[in-house]
Amino acid sequence: MGEKLTPLSDIGEFGLIDKIKAMFPAKHPSTKMGIGDDAAVLKPGKGRTLVTTDLLLEGVHFDLSYTPLHHLGYKAVAVNVSDIAAMNGTPRQITLGLGISSKFTLEAMERFLEGVKAACDNYGIDLIGGDITSSRKGFFISITALGEGLVGDIVYRNGAKVNDIICVTGDLGGAFAGLNVLEREKQVFIQNPQMQPKLDKYQYIVQRQLKPEARMDIIHELREKKIVPTAMIDVSDGLASELLHIANDSKVSIRVFEENLPIDKITYDTAVEFNLDPVTFVMNGGEDYELLFTISQEDFETLKNHPDIHFIGFVQNKKEKNTLVTKGGNEVSIQAQGWRHLQ
Amino acid sequence: MGEKLTPLSDIGEFGLIDKIKAMFPAKHPSTKMGIGDDAAVLKPGKGRTLVTTDLLLEGVHFDLSYTPLHHLGYKAVAVNVSDIAAMNGTPRQITLGLGISSKFTLEAMERFLEGVKAACDNYGIDLIGGDITSSRKGFFISITALGEGLVGDIVYRNGAKVNDIICVTGDLGGAFAGLNVLEREKQVFIQNPQMQPKLDKYQYIVQRQLKPEARMDIIHELREKKIVPTAMIDVSDGLASELLHIANDSKVSIRVFEENLPIDKITYDTAVEFNLDPVTFVMNGGEDYELLFTISQEDFETLKNHPDIHFIGFVQNKKEKNTLVTKGGNEVSIQAQGWRHLQ
Repeated sequence: MGEKLTPLSDIGEFGLIDKIKAMFPAKHPSTKMGIGDDAAVLKPGKGRTLVTTDLLLEGVHFDLSYTPLHHLGYKAVAVNVSDIAAMNGTPRQITLGLGISSKFTLEAMERFLEGVKAACDNYGIDLIGGDITSSRKGFFISITALGEGLVGDIVYRNGAKVNDIICVTGDLGGAFAGLNVLEREKQVFIQNPQMQPKLDKYQYIVQRQLKPEARMDIIHELREKKIVPTAMIDVSDGLASELLHIANDSKVSIRVFEENLPIDKITYDTAVEFNLDPVTFVMNGGEDYELLFTISQEDFETLKNHPDIHFIGFVQNKKEKNTLVTKGGNEVSIQAQGWRHLQ
Repeated sequence: MGEKLTPLSDIGEFGLIDKIKAMFPAKHPSTKMGIGDDAAVLKPGKGRTLVTTDLLLEGVHFDLSYTPLHHLGYKAVAVNVSDIAAMNGTPRQITLGLGISSKFTLEAMERFLEGVKAACDNYGIDLIGGDITSSRKGFFISITALGEGLVGDIVYRNGAKVNDIICVTGDLGGAFAGLNVLEREKQVFIQNPQMQPKLDKYQYIVQRQLKPEARMDIIHELREKKIVPTAMIDVSDGLASELLHIANDSKVSIRVFEENLPIDKITYDTAVEFNLDPVTFVMNGGEDYELLFTISQEDFETLKNHPDIHFIGFVQNKKEKNTLVTKGGNEVSIQAQGWRHLQ
């Protein structure tokens, strides 16, 4: 397209680090020293420090043939923020580890970093350090996020109690539906490079896949309403897997109802278009980065009219099975998914 | 060898995480929640929190054909601890990110994790979380280390003052000498697989390459002697590069003397054997993970007889050039190395 592309080797390691340092000035009062020494130096707040790490690998977690680098940078931050949110915490800082193949240009790196910066700005995060190296092949990203949680407010997976109400935010299965569409359009394009991808009507689910948001808005709302969930987890591997984490860690079982599962019409229609069960998209799709949490019954009144929180079931005694009740009234046992990545 | 090898997919994601959780019980009082939730939960100490991230990639940072996995696990932790040491801090926790190719077996993973554990035990660190995923090709490791430093004791790169004495621990160039030997023996083996590698007389430098130690021993000794360096950095990219970091960040220049540079006899002999200049090994070799620091003249008396701290030069006004004085009395300007990885 006539754009001049610059090999990263032209600016070298120190040039790239200087560029990143200039793009990401430290803003938090707690960041005493960000990029530029052997380690970052942070002043801890009054609460606990929360720490989480997520990896994103080309060819496993993302496909650069249809993933805009700006979105990828945003998503890499958002998925880590989602883990801090799931502890009822507030994100503060990230470190960024990048492995870059030699085909990567400075311009590509800038687009990626702009996405990282957009997410940092949106979530109020400082980029405080990291490591950049070449890779023999492929692009990979490792982010560690640090956050803060007040001692009494941190929510674990293990606090759900019998009769608690199971809540989930937003809608589910959309990211997986979007992935299916993107993969299909990629195959069409490979077979006929003249064909333009038809993504217009799938815009919502494609966005869910490429640029998810961490639900910090919900965390802030719950704080305003003085509601502390009894257990919480973010929906990264699919609802079924996350429900089982809460059930197992809390030593309870769960009962959810198909009719209450939130699914967007486009997600539903796309599943049908692919001859797949929409419920499978919701239960096992993954990458929605919504929040799954349990609340005590007394908190239900405060939340019951919330437009973006859905009440999908309740917590029951461990002796009961983990159950999905279908629209037809059948009871289906909820099974753990295997490890897709290593299988 | 008759050893039964188990594909990692046999135990699955949750099986592997359970295994790691059992291998790494949290020991620090500051670790309130380690592996097993969306994020780890730490109780910060009185001081500042130090954070550093290092990546190690197969084919770039290590070669599995001659790197024992146990040593690799150890080294991956040690190089991060070295960064915490270089801030005059104490390491507390790490997160571990792993990308694993499908050829990796459970037994290989166990050997790697045993190395990680040996380092964690040695340095008094808790493994508190991370992320494990498949990679399309190759093994890669991302570690983020958290440490603590007391407010007045943290040492940056930017504190060196004119007339300060430049100190370095241990000896330099050994890791690079070891790498040269390992690469040569690998080539010999590729050409003639019947040949056994001859590593006996190179044992010290091979060890320097494969299983470096972070110099926490020196950090503890300096504390006992109540010496706070004015600037400090760890020697990971070669002495020349680290000297320039201190000079540039401290807005001073440095003058070092070849005759004072610490080099082990095996390192020296190996450089000569490869027809290379031993000084180049010291100045640009990298991966020694020794500590380079500056002290005020009044602290010299306390350290002058230390058997493992070497006084290689002094800090001078920024107007002077960064200079290496050779044994023959010539003055050589110290140049920054480019970025090996991206060039």
